Amino acid sequence: MFETAEVGNSISKEKYKQEVAAVREKLLEIQKELAVSKCSAIVVVGGVEGAGKTEVVNQLLEWMDARGIETHALEKPTDEEIQRPYMWRFWRLIPPKGRMAIFLGSWYTMPIVYKTFKKMKDKDFQEHLDEIVSFENMLSKEGVILIKFWLHIKKDLLIKRMKKLEKDPLQSWRITKRDWNFVKKYDRFREVSETALGVTNTKDASWLIVEAEDFRYRNITVAKNIIKKLEQRRQLSQKESDFPLSARKFEHASNNIFKTLDYSRKVEEKEYEKKLPELQKELYKSVQKMQKKDKSLILVFEGPDAAGKGGTIRRIIKGLNAKDYRVISVAAPTDEEKARPYLWRFWRYLPRKDKITIYDRSWYGRVLVEKIEGFCSDDEWKRAYSEINQFEKELSDFGIIILKFYLSITPQEQLKRFKERQTTPYKQYKITPEDWRNRAKFRSYEACAIEMFEKTSMPFAPWFVIAANDKNYARLEVLGIITRELKEKVK
Amino acid sequence: MFETAEVGNSISKEKYKQEVAAVREKLLEIQKELAVSKCSAIVVVGGVEGAGKTEVVNQLLEWMDARGIETHALEKPTDEEIQRPYMWRFWRLIPPKGRMAIFLGSWYTMPIVYKTFKKMKDKDFQEHLDEIVSFENMLSKEGVILIKFWLHIKKDLLIKRMKKLEKDPLQSWRITKRDWNFVKKYDRFREVSETALGVTNTKDASWLIVEAEDFRYRNITVAKNIIKKLEQRRQLSQKESDFPLSARKFEHASNNIFKTLDYSRKVEEKEYEKKLPELQKELYKSVQKMQKKDKSLILVFEGPDAAGKGGTIRRIIKGLNAKDYRVISVAAPTDEEKARPYLWRFWRYLPRKDKITIYDRSWYGRVLVEKIEGFCSDDEWKRAYSEINQFEKELSDFGIIILKFYLSITPQEQLKRFKERQTTPYKQYKITPEDWRNRAKFRSYEACAIEMFEKTSMPFAPWFVIAANDKNYARLEVLGIITRELKEKVK
Repeated sequence: MFETAEVGNSISKEKYKQEVAAVREKLLEIQKELAVSKCSAIVVVGGVEGAGKTEVVNQLLEWMDARGIETHALEKPTDEEIQRPYMWRFWRLIPPKGRMAIFLGSWYTMPIVYKTFKKMKDKDFQEHLDEIVSFENMLSKEGVILIKFWLHIKKDLLIKRMKKLEKDPLQSWRITKRDWNFVKKYDRFREVSETALGVTNTKDASWLIVEAEDFRYRNITVAKNIIKKLEQRRQLSQKESDFPLSARKFEHASNNIFKTLDYSRKVEEKEYEKKLPELQKELYKSVQKMQKKDKSLILVFEGPDAAGKGGTIRRIIKGLNAKDYRVISVAAPTDEEKARPYLWRFWRYLPRKDKITIYDRSWYGRVLVEKIEGFCSDDEWKRAYSEINQFEKELSDFGIIILKFYLSITPQEQLKRFKERQTTPYKQYKITPEDWRNRAKFRSYEACAIEMFEKTSMPFAPWFVIAANDKNYARLEVLGIITRELKEKVK
Repeated sequence: MFETAEVGNSISKEKYKQEVAAVREKLLEIQKELAVSKCSAIVVVGGVEGAGKTEVVNQLLEWMDARGIETHALEKPTDEEIQRPYMWRFWRLIPPKGRMAIFLGSWYTMPIVYKTFKKMKDKDFQEHLDEIVSFENMLSKEGVILIKFWLHIKKDLLIKRMKKLEKDPLQSWRITKRDWNFVKKYDRFREVSETALGVTNTKDASWLIVEAEDFRYRNITVAKNIIKKLEQRRQLSQKESDFPLSARKFEHASNNIFKTLDYSRKVEEKEYEKKLPELQKELYKSVQKMQKKDKSLILVFEGPDAAGKGGTIRRIIKGLNAKDYRVISVAAPTDEEKARPYLWRFWRYLPRKDKITIYDRSWYGRVLVEKIEGFCSDDEWKRAYSEINQFEKELSDFGIIILKFYLSITPQEQLKRFKERQTTPYKQYKITPEDWRNRAKFRSYEACAIEMFEKTSMPFAPWFVIAANDKNYARLEVLGIITRELKEKVK
């Protein structure tokens, strides 16, 4: 794979001067276009140590308008990062629409370096690469333009280059011990990188291997390729006609889980009052055990309006320590959220180790309300299932326990609750005209939920569908399931 | 101070029931008003351990619409937090407009606990309290409604309460060893708290001491006071007529620093080419020394359009390692930023230990462009000076070195550069119609800058005003100053 970058490409001083003028103009032009587009761009600069990654980036920042660009050089993860799944630190850094981020060291660094220094098993390496492919695929679909460079330089030339820099008193500081350590592992590093690049060289996130011996050739090649990639995307976006999105209707499938629910289940007040504190105490104990094992917990609540999500959550948190949990009520995204891939706003609030995040509505909005109301395109909700599964798999692999609850009520019960809300003063805030509009789509909502259960109920992140016509029953049921599942999953 | 909360206040069961219904309705109503207002609210719940802080918060969350409220329980700071000034972790959590945050443990916790356990000197304790007063004062002026509660309970009653809870098998988990440790220190804790509350009991951030023995009285008192505080603020906001803001003009003061600058200073290309890499190397070395001492660096750049800020920054970063610095180009705030106090967007990007943040334009926008263009009120820019000094003092106390550069050019030079930008294709992006409009206000801008130097050039955060008509001279000058200052300040 690297042979194409070992042919001695170079550019003369004069030609470079001409090229630079043209390239700068073009870069700025295309950057301005990006600024007003619906896309963002991520430039990944990888390659062997000493090939001049930092220099390329400095050069790009000099040629472009540095104000639209953020540079991220990766170092040792912080403890806030260590305590969350591997990709969290990269999600944090995804640029908003219109902007470009340059990664000096990226999600490739850890797997490649660990594999090179034999600190990672084959299987884990492969799994990381698979995750990366899904991640980049998702980014690309969400409008992030991925431009990946690998700076390559032959071993003998690399050593020559480093020795030369070391001799120059003004440049010697650029060469560190770390660089020499990498030279020792050059062959293995090359082999590992070749595998990594091969697997992750996908259609929407292809690698360009850049011969880095001649700095002029290197800089111009990188710049030209950025221009090319951004131009390609522009042409593509122009072709994509913007269909106006509109509301959709869905029919129940034959395997209607809601028909199998027993909505008549009921718990009398007296029993409820007795059992609730017992279950809360149990919950508290299971959470303590979970924390001893350094695990964390995500609870997801979905269900139609007035199904009792908020009330159930309140009963759960009464059995928790305020310092251990966080309730995220998912409403309209902020503009910082809207400017980034869909899942960004949920990654933001992932629990640290030993902690709990309760999502009152969640990423499943994409395949429920957004799908029905036409807030997203067909492509978007259709690919959401696998994106969500991938997302939850990563969390689960990291040791996060995920439990998803769907509180189901009948349309009759919903109507009753709506009316009650309208007549109880302190409940009025809960009912809005939108709730009545949503009610008209009750069956579509259920149909979407059925598809959702089918496609996203996984062993590592199961759905629990609860008949919630009786609030007491539903609350005890949820509390019981959480405690039971925690006991099973924390051993 | 606490005697008022030792009189045996209580509420009967029946009265509580009535009060609750009224209080809930009112809470929700006022919360709805908050949601559409320009204000946010912060509720601080402090007090002795075991007085039921968590229970009050749980009760509030049950009565109110939990979706508008974030609860923050403070724990051991993370390393990302440790590596930044003390208040950073609280700035992170300031709620956006329309929302309420409840702090269980707050900026008061560390000073009070440390002082109680004799881990903090008197002088430092006093300094923390002063910082808190300024902080809360600023919050209040920025539209954050502060509601502070201190739950108090007499020592003998506290012990009785804890023993009773411990006996109840369903409640015993609520009492921990930590609680008993605090009981041992009760008297000293009481004394220290009394001082802290006294000093920080200001007009816009007053404390309410709540007798916590009777949970009904405690809950109702807290709820009613929240209602009262939010209602007061509403009346206040209604009175404040919204004057439309408009552009302002300013005249030079007699002590015009710009007249004393020697704009003819020049460095020839040859000398520049020789000196630049030397200075970059020096800079690199000083930064390494700085890092060894665990300090960090903030560079601020201000100056009229086309003064050469970006170019100077590019020359600086060439002498830095990409992993060590971050350039923040300050443009229009995002909606998440607009919804919070002015300085929030700058706190966001504070450097960690060993790191550098370069601000291309900064918080000084408030007393420059925002002041001139009328983007803020008179009150806002007038109080900005002391807020900024306080801000920079906190950073400096923490070990951040702050250097502020104002690149000054003459109007003639600006005109020349504007014209040049218009004719050089790759520079055209830098020039907009707005630049021409700003140019008309060149002298007002300078007048504001003069006032800014006078009011914010501090030993711990000095301003350097550079005659920048010659780019080479300005760049070398800035690099030289940074290196010199680093050497002086890192010993």
